[in-house]
Amino acid sequence: MGWAGRTGCRHRGGRCDMSRPEPLFSRVAYIGCGLINSSLARALAASGVAGHQVAFARTRATRDRVRELGIVDTVADAPDAAVEGADLVVIGTPVSAYGEVAAAIAPGLRPGAVVTDVGSVKTSVIRVVEPHLPDGVHFVPGHPIAGTEKSGPDAGFAELFHSRWCVLTPTPETDGAAVAKVRRMWEAVGMQVDEMDPEHHDRVLAITSHVPHLIAFSIVGTVTLLEEHLQAEVMKYAAGGFRDFTRIAASDPQMWRDIFLSNKDAVLEMVARATEDLASLQRLIRHEDGDALIQLITRTREIRQGVIAFEQD
Amino acid sequence: MGWAGRTGCRHRGGRCDMSRPEPLFSRVAYIGCGLINSSLARALAASGVAGHQVAFARTRATRDRVRELGIVDTVADAPDAAVEGADLVVIGTPVSAYGEVAAAIAPGLRPGAVVTDVGSVKTSVIRVVEPHLPDGVHFVPGHPIAGTEKSGPDAGFAELFHSRWCVLTPTPETDGAAVAKVRRMWEAVGMQVDEMDPEHHDRVLAITSHVPHLIAFSIVGTVTLLEEHLQAEVMKYAAGGFRDFTRIAASDPQMWRDIFLSNKDAVLEMVARATEDLASLQRLIRHEDGDALIQLITRTREIRQGVIAFEQD
Repeated sequence: MGWAGRTGCRHRGGRCDMSRPEPLFSRVAYIGCGLINSSLARALAASGVAGHQVAFARTRATRDRVRELGIVDTVADAPDAAVEGADLVVIGTPVSAYGEVAAAIAPGLRPGAVVTDVGSVKTSVIRVVEPHLPDGVHFVPGHPIAGTEKSGPDAGFAELFHSRWCVLTPTPETDGAAVAKVRRMWEAVGMQVDEMDPEHHDRVLAITSHVPHLIAFSIVGTVTLLEEHLQAEVMKYAAGGFRDFTRIAASDPQMWRDIFLSNKDAVLEMVARATEDLASLQRLIRHEDGDALIQLITRTREIRQGVIAFEQD
Repeated sequence: MGWAGRTGCRHRGGRCDMSRPEPLFSRVAYIGCGLINSSLARALAASGVAGHQVAFARTRATRDRVRELGIVDTVADAPDAAVEGADLVVIGTPVSAYGEVAAAIAPGLRPGAVVTDVGSVKTSVIRVVEPHLPDGVHFVPGHPIAGTEKSGPDAGFAELFHSRWCVLTPTPETDGAAVAKVRRMWEAVGMQVDEMDPEHHDRVLAITSHVPHLIAFSIVGTVTLLEEHLQAEVMKYAAGGFRDFTRIAASDPQMWRDIFLSNKDAVLEMVARATEDLASLQRLIRHEDGDALIQLITRTREIRQGVIAFEQD
C-alpha cells in the first residue's frame, strides 16, 4: 500500500502495533490549506482517524508556511501528486477554484477514494466537481459550519469544529458508505453532523450566513464612503454595535465573492426580503409608529432565545 | 447638610475620619435603575466618588429588586423624594420618559445640583429636559458608550464602563464646573471622556450604533416571517453570522424604539445611505461583477483594522 501511518503500523512488515486501531483513512490529502483545512489537519493529527496527512496549496509561500508549521506529514508541490494513494481528499480552496481543482486531481485519484469539501455553498459545487471525477471515486459534498474572520494556515486551530454543526449534502447518487465515513471523520473532530438536500442547504445558509455577511460588508462599506473625520470617529466609537459588523466584514474577500456568486439566486432572494423589511422599518420610524416598532423588536428577542435554546441542547 | 456618606464622615459631629477624602458628590440620586444606572451605582459604591446613593425606579417590582440587590443605600418611592438633597442626579430611564422625569424631579432639586443622563441620543434630550429644570441647576447631557444586550438592575456590573468612551455634549450655556465634575465621575469608573456637539454626537451614534441595531432588528425580523421549519433551521445553524445579529437584536425594545424616534433624522439619513449601498451590492451580485465585490470587501477590512487600532491606543 505504500503508506506509513503516524502510528508506525506496517502490517506487511510484521511490525504491527495491534493496540492502535486502523485509522479510518490511511492517507488524507488536503487541497488548499487555509483556515478550515489547516484546522482539520491539526484536529485529525491527534485523532487516530487519519494515517498519513499530505497537503497541497496553490502558492509556494503557503506551502513553505505549512511545512514550517508542521501541520501535515508531507507538503506536495502539485495537486495530482498530493492525492496519489489518498483514500480521503478534502477540497478546501475558494469555491471558484473547485472546477479547476477537480480537473487537476482527477488523474491522481485512486478507485474507491472519497472526495469531500468544506465549501459554504453546495449546489454549484456538486455541479462543477462531479463531472471531473473518475468512476469509482465518491464525492461527498460537505460544509462544516465553523470559522473565524481570519484566514490562512496560521489562523487554524484544532478546536475550531468543537460542538459545531457540519452539514453533508449527498445527492441520491452519492455512495452511502462514503457518506458514513465522512460523517465519522467530522464527528471525530467534535462536530454534530446533519444531512440535507443541497438546494435546501444553500437556502438556509443564505439566511444564516451569506446575507448577514453581505449586509455587514454593505454597512461597513457605507462607512468607507463617509468624510474622513467622521470615519475616524466611527472607528473610535465603534463599540456601540458597529464593531460586530466590522468583525463579520473582515472575512476573506475572495471566499465571500465566490459564495455570493455561487449562491446568487438564494442570496438575492433573501436580500430582497431583507430590503423590503428594512424599508418597512424605515417607514415605521418616519411615521413614528412606536407600537409597531416595539412589536417588531419584541419578536426579534424570541429568535435570540431560540438560538440560545438550540446551543444549549 | 443632612447626609451621611458611606465613609461615616460627619464633619459637624466632630467624628471625621480625615484619611478618607471628601466624595466628589455627597449624595447621588439615580432615576431609573436598569443596566446602566445599576452598573454605575455598583461602580461608584467602591470609588469614593459618591457619598450616599439613592435610587428611584418606576415600578414597585424594580424598586423591591434594587433593595434586595443592595446596589444603593436607599431606594426612594417617588422621584422628587429621591433627588432631595442630591448634588448629582443621573437620569437613566428610556429617553421617551425624560420630559416627564424632568418635570417630576424639578420640585425636589436643590440649587447647584448637577443633573446628567446616560441616554444614547442627545439633541432631543436637551430639548425636553432643560425647560423643566429650575435656575441654578446644571444639566450635563452625557452618553457612556457601554452596554450589553441585557437590561434591568440584575444585568448591571461595576466593570461595564472600563476602558470605554463616554461622550458629554454640553451646549454653550452648560456650566463648565458641572461638566468637569461629571467628567471626573465617569473617569473614576474607568471611562475615557470626550466632549462633542450634541448634533454631531447624534450623527456619529446613528452610524456606530443606531443603524447597526436597526439593521439587526430588521434582518432578525425577516427570519420571524419565514416558514416555521425554516425558522427552526436558521436558529440551529445560526453560528455562521446570523448569531451576532440576534445578539444585537436582543436589546431592550422600549429603549430602542425611543432611540430610533428621538434620533429620527440622523437615523433615516444613514439608513438611506445604507440602503443605497446594499442595492448597489445586490446589483454587483446580479451582474456577477466579481472584481468590484473583491474591491468592496477589501475596503471593509481596512475599517476593521482601524477599529482595532483605536482599541489598542
